[in-house]
Amino acid sequence: MLSKNKAKLIMALKKKKVREEEGLFVIEGDKLVKEFLIAKIPLKMLIAKPEFLRSLTPEMRRLTDDIDEVNSDELRHISTLKNPQNSLALVKIKEKIQDTNKILRGLTAALDSVQDPGNLGTIIRAAAWFGIKNIVCSHNCADIYNPKVIQASMGAVLYVDVYYSDLKILLGLACEKMIPVFGTMLEGESIYDHKLGNNGIIILGNESKGISAELVPFITDKIMIPGSGRSKPGIDSLNVGMAASVVFSEFLRKSVMLKE
Amino acid sequence: MLSKNKAKLIMALKKKKVREEEGLFVIEGDKLVKEFLIAKIPLKMLIAKPEFLRSLTPEMRRLTDDIDEVNSDELRHISTLKNPQNSLALVKIKEKIQDTNKILRGLTAALDSVQDPGNLGTIIRAAAWFGIKNIVCSHNCADIYNPKVIQASMGAVLYVDVYYSDLKILLGLACEKMIPVFGTMLEGESIYDHKLGNNGIIILGNESKGISAELVPFITDKIMIPGSGRSKPGIDSLNVGMAASVVFSEFLRKSVMLKE
Repeated sequence: MLSKNKAKLIMALKKKKVREEEGLFVIEGDKLVKEFLIAKIPLKMLIAKPEFLRSLTPEMRRLTDDIDEVNSDELRHISTLKNPQNSLALVKIKEKIQDTNKILRGLTAALDSVQDPGNLGTIIRAAAWFGIKNIVCSHNCADIYNPKVIQASMGAVLYVDVYYSDLKILLGLACEKMIPVFGTMLEGESIYDHKLGNNGIIILGNESKGISAELVPFITDKIMIPGSGRSKPGIDSLNVGMAASVVFSEFLRKSVMLKE
Repeated sequence: MLSKNKAKLIMALKKKKVREEEGLFVIEGDKLVKEFLIAKIPLKMLIAKPEFLRSLTPEMRRLTDDIDEVNSDELRHISTLKNPQNSLALVKIKEKIQDTNKILRGLTAALDSVQDPGNLGTIIRAAAWFGIKNIVCSHNCADIYNPKVIQASMGAVLYVDVYYSDLKILLGLACEKMIPVFGTMLEGESIYDHKLGNNGIIILGNESKGISAELVPFITDKIMIPGSGRSKPGIDSLNVGMAASVVFSEFLRKSVMLKE
């Protein structure tokens, strides 16, 4: 049985302002909640149906001291999903301090106004898969703790550090240190022909406007994903999540080839 | 001013059953509507704000003889988008007859229970970009005329033929004709090392369950997308749309390399 106050809090956490005030975010779905537990992340609150609670190991149970057993109706009431599963949990937001020197040492994705939560989530998932450890988002990107971002990332938020900051400052520093800045643009060179390397910043632009004009001057390496060449009116771009996957994958392929 | 009956019809078209009965589907958003007009697709009905109507060329206007000028409130009332733009249109569903011989000659994607409309839309978009002309969906995939599919495909539905059929029959025929069937599986060989070629069927599986057990025996080529190698609990797969993009891109890269 879930108290009214708890239900109210969980539903209010759909709002960014409330998440910031409370320092909490929602994760939902059995697979996702389990992934957090496997990664040993303490849960501030776990709300679940008995079948989910029974499936927990004693070690997992120790990661939370506030467990509410609920039925399907109660879960549906607080859920953000169309088809709620058996569990939902609240997790503490961990303040992350951006270590710019560290970010500039490896490969980092810089997201310029990626506003769709699903796109942000899939980009984080692709980054985790292809070994990109840091993502820096402009302040107007979707919020990483938005339930749709967490859902689309499928737990990848646990393995990629996501920061929010002014991209002009970051790119300015990269420029000073002669670190390459890659930008996907239609007039760029094919990612298959272009030298990519293990170090640099990959800018990914807004869903409809691409990379903003004020960031373009920082780009040292204009790259593009070759299409089939049959030009079609309208089909002028890939979705930003798909473009990110193809670009990250090619960076990884080339870096593995270099090592061999 | 939009009649009540028209508004009712447009809203009812969110349902697959109604779309099938009426033989119509909805496209929405200025860019998308323009793309259909540029491709010379006649619109059964165009509902738009004056600024959109003013932007049409006489040739575009000739593609529809039923135009309703509306204001923002009227458009919001019938819209399926969170932030409606200036236009919405109804388009006739064109019956497509599957030419299996043609499908088996080139590269075709076979989607096995891809149920998320956004994923189906982005896969169609990726197919258009990377030159895959045919997609065969299992009957339980999302419906191509679902507004969310059309929206996510960004007009790519105009350039890719999408069929619904029994994948077992298609794959059985491929088998008989010794056409390679590619399936992405965690135990597959790296797409970078595997021979891909210009001909074959690429199976993409369900968002959470992967490729169904009954289709696995048809796979002649098990392939996988290499990750960064640092194994992480939970991060066991890419989103199906991202996987499709990386795989299609690699097929295209290799086929271009072969020609050079």
